[in-house]
Amino acid sequence: MSDKSTGADNPGTSISPMLSVRNGAKAVEFYQTAFAARVLFRLDGDDGGVVAQLTVGSAEFWLADESPEHHNFSPETLGGSTVRMVMVVEDPDTVFAQAVAAGATEVVPVTNQPYGWRVGRIVDPFGHHWEIGKPIAG
Amino acid sequence: MSDKSTGADNPGTSISPMLSVRNGAKAVEFYQTAFAARVLFRLDGDDGGVVAQLTVGSAEFWLADESPEHHNFSPETLGGSTVRMVMVVEDPDTVFAQAVAAGATEVVPVTNQPYGWRVGRIVDPFGHHWEIGKPIAG
Repeated sequence: MSDKSTGADNPGTSISPMLSVRNGAKAVEFYQTAFAARVLFRLDGDDGGVVAQLTVGSAEFWLADESPEHHNFSPETLGGSTVRMVMVVEDPDTVFAQAVAAGATEVVPVTNQPYGWRVGRIVDPFGHHWEIGKPIAG
Repeated sequence: MSDKSTGADNPGTSISPMLSVRNGAKAVEFYQTAFAARVLFRLDGDDGGVVAQLTVGSAEFWLADESPEHHNFSPETLGGSTVRMVMVVEDPDTVFAQAVAAGATEVVPVTNQPYGWRVGRIVDPFGHHWEIGKPIAG
């Protein structure tokens, strides 16, 4: 049944997370400072809501103001998050420190893990969790 | 302060979502059927919990059994999701239909949107939402 040319397993498929937040405009600013994110696309609604596509290096993610009526809930509204972001970077210590300086909160400091990664975890001011790390060269 | 060679804006940075679910083993099976996902890495814990890294075409995501004590909540536990996945594919209609056939529920059918995308939305059996679409050639 699977059609290699048109199915999801086509090489051109991409998956990008879309983070629901309260105050999308502030969130764009935060990710610019914390991760040196760049804005690829931004739509400002009449209600002040923002939809934005951000890039960090060659990685991409989206954010949008929450809209519970459309099943889009911020971590603040639900009291937790259902997806965390795994961010692989050249220098986890530097990026982790930059994010904390920008207003993120340390959840787990950057340490070498027995499964072969150097990684730490933060929660950002909007309630989203990020694991920032890289595989340790063997 | 930003160091282009070691900061998050390094071209080698990647961001992959890690989905918290109830019953990770079943979730791996679902994504294999729905999206023709392939398992790149899988760790089965003594408690039956699973951590898995999946690829769909050239895209990557992770899933893991929820662990509220570590701030990882499934959509079933919180009653909603805080991040949705934007999946760009060659043929949204085919992939959408495959996912629904595998057990996902239609939230918004695949239609042409005024912002230039052909896109639909599903919620999978674990409560995660996926927008499946592509830009319409102009």
